[in-house]
Amino acid sequence: MDYYSKQISKLIEELSTLPGIGSKSAQRLAFHILNMPIEQAEGLSSAIIEARKNVRYCKTCYTLTDHDVCPICQNTGRDHKTIMVVEDTRDLAAYEKTQKYTGVYHVLHGAISPMLGIGPGDIKLKELMQRLQGDVDEVIIATNSSLEGETTAMYISKLIKPTGIKVTRIASGVPVGGDLEYIDEMTLLRALEGRVEL
Amino acid sequence: MDYYSKQISKLIEELSTLPGIGSKSAQRLAFHILNMPIEQAEGLSSAIIEARKNVRYCKTCYTLTDHDVCPICQNTGRDHKTIMVVEDTRDLAAYEKTQKYTGVYHVLHGAISPMLGIGPGDIKLKELMQRLQGDVDEVIIATNSSLEGETTAMYISKLIKPTGIKVTRIASGVPVGGDLEYIDEMTLLRALEGRVEL
Repeated sequence: MDYYSKQISKLIEELSTLPGIGSKSAQRLAFHILNMPIEQAEGLSSAIIEARKNVRYCKTCYTLTDHDVCPICQNTGRDHKTIMVVEDTRDLAAYEKTQKYTGVYHVLHGAISPMLGIGPGDIKLKELMQRLQGDVDEVIIATNSSLEGETTAMYISKLIKPTGIKVTRIASGVPVGGDLEYIDEMTLLRALEGRVEL
Repeated sequence: MDYYSKQISKLIEELSTLPGIGSKSAQRLAFHILNMPIEQAEGLSSAIIEARKNVRYCKTCYTLTDHDVCPICQNTGRDHKTIMVVEDTRDLAAYEKTQKYTGVYHVLHGAISPMLGIGPGDIKLKELMQRLQGDVDEVIIATNSSLEGETTAMYISKLIKPTGIKVTRIASGVPVGGDLEYIDEMTLLRALEGRVEL
């Protein structure tokens, strides 16, 4: 890295700590930044530090937000008795994009993974159970359809069942537009098991 | 983008202006940054702005550096009568990594490309010709082996020839470790034309 002057090396080094950015990509990004108009570089620099400083967990649903309580939890037009449990803020955003879900969310910030040493105490589960002491009709578990997501879904449903609150899991099956020929066997079996009467 | 709070959206938006970073990658990077220790986010943020503010062209060879004259041009141990012409600072760094080249450089910041509307006046060619009024023995043209790089090499050599200064071009051929079977025909022909006696 001493082929570049100190500040260029420092920039390349910082950029290459980002996920999916190797040393070649970091060099490419660094030279792009060096050729940016100064205002744009300032915009990028301040967006990073402002977001990191001001973004925190929503006090209710634990999504990442720059408010104490996120706009979704503050919205009285939404159904606060239906809580969708997701692994992270990006999953919440994915459901928000459908513009059809009118309930609220609970963001776990992870999934139970014995492999990675992530236990129930490492995700926002205690916080979910506390919320359920309020007036809740249904908990929709929308963790990913991965091993960790399924494990987490099973664990949560067992935890909630005794409270008498309805617990549901989003359906697993053939994606819309999916061609059966290219879909894995596990998904095909799930789709068969979850078949509905027409 | 209104699925995320304002500062998260702003960060995603800024990151997605970087080359090779689409909206999905920008989201991934943004959430990585939001989960960084604050010191690391500050490091990244300040590396961007410091590098952009302080890095400029070397007054002699036009490489990007944080000095008025870059360490290579300042180094009296190097051969200042041999100038290697490269397209950008990354190409300079590539030759510096070999640790065998002892001359100096001239960075064009681009290559002539009629397709992209880049003419001889848009790269640091005038500056190169000015340098050649000093005491120079040889100009080694090390532009890329692309159409633009070759065009630029031809153009420069025609420009320099009348001055009587020796002009050379780095060799084109089979890369070291290259398997002939997988090498394109143009390269094979170049390697044949450029064959040397053993």
